[in-house]
Amino acid sequence: MVDLEASIELYREAFGAQVGSRTASEVEGLEAVFMRTGSGEIELMRPTRDDSPVGKFLARRGPGLHHVAYGVDDIRQALRAARAAGLELIDTEPRMGMHGSLIAFVHPKSVGGVLTEFIET
Amino acid sequence: MVDLEASIELYREAFGAQVGSRTASEVEGLEAVFMRTGSGEIELMRPTRDDSPVGKFLARRGPGLHHVAYGVDDIRQALRAARAAGLELIDTEPRMGMHGSLIAFVHPKSVGGVLTEFIET
Repeated sequence: MVDLEASIELYREAFGAQVGSRTASEVEGLEAVFMRTGSGEIELMRPTRDDSPVGKFLARRGPGLHHVAYGVDDIRQALRAARAAGLELIDTEPRMGMHGSLIAFVHPKSVGGVLTEFIET
Repeated sequence: MVDLEASIELYREAFGAQVGSRTASEVEGLEAVFMRTGSGEIELMRPTRDDSPVGKFLARRGPGLHHVAYGVDDIRQALRAARAAGLELIDTEPRMGMHGSLIAFVHPKSVGGVLTEFIET
C-alpha cells in the first residue's frame, strides 16, 4: 500500500508543506493528512482497505492525483450552479465529510475526467 | 480531441472561474488557458498534436488531472531542495515556460505518481 509517513516527509522537505489536521474513517476506509502549501492545501490519502473507494481507485489507476476540491461559502448554492451547468452529481445532497465540513462530489465524467469536490468553508 | 471552449464555459458556469491569460506553443504542441478560482488557478490544456507531451498523456491516460504546480520565489532554490529530498528532476535547470515564467518539472515517479511543476512567481 502507500506509505503515508514517507509522503508527509517528502512534502515537508521538497515542497515546504506543513502538516495540518489528520483524520481516519472506518466507513470511508481512509486515512488522510492535510498539508498546507502557501494558499493551498494538499490532502495525502491512504486507503485502509482495498475495497474502499480510494483503495479501488489506487488499484485501478495507481498512485497519483485523485481529486480537486473547491472551498465554497454555500455548498447548496454550489450544487445548484453545478446542476444548472449540466454536471452530474455523485452527492445530490451535501454530506458530512471526514474533516467536519459539508462536502459533495461531482462525477468526473462531467468534468473532463476530473473528480471534483465542493467543501463548505 | 478536447473542446477547450466548452471546458472554459464549464469552469465559468459551474465553478465561477474567471478566464485569465491564454497562450499557445508550436514547440510544446499545446494550447492553454489559465482560469482563476479563488486563491488558486486551473490550467486548461489542449494538445495541438497527438505526439506532443500532453497529446501522449491524453492518449495514454484519457482526460483528467495532468499536474500540480507550486509557485515559488526562487526556482533554483526549490530545485536544490527537491534534489536534496531525493526527487528526480525532469528539468535539472529552470527553463522558460509558455507563460513567460521560469518553470521546472519533477518526475512523477518520485512524487507518488504526481507530475509536479515549480513556477517562479
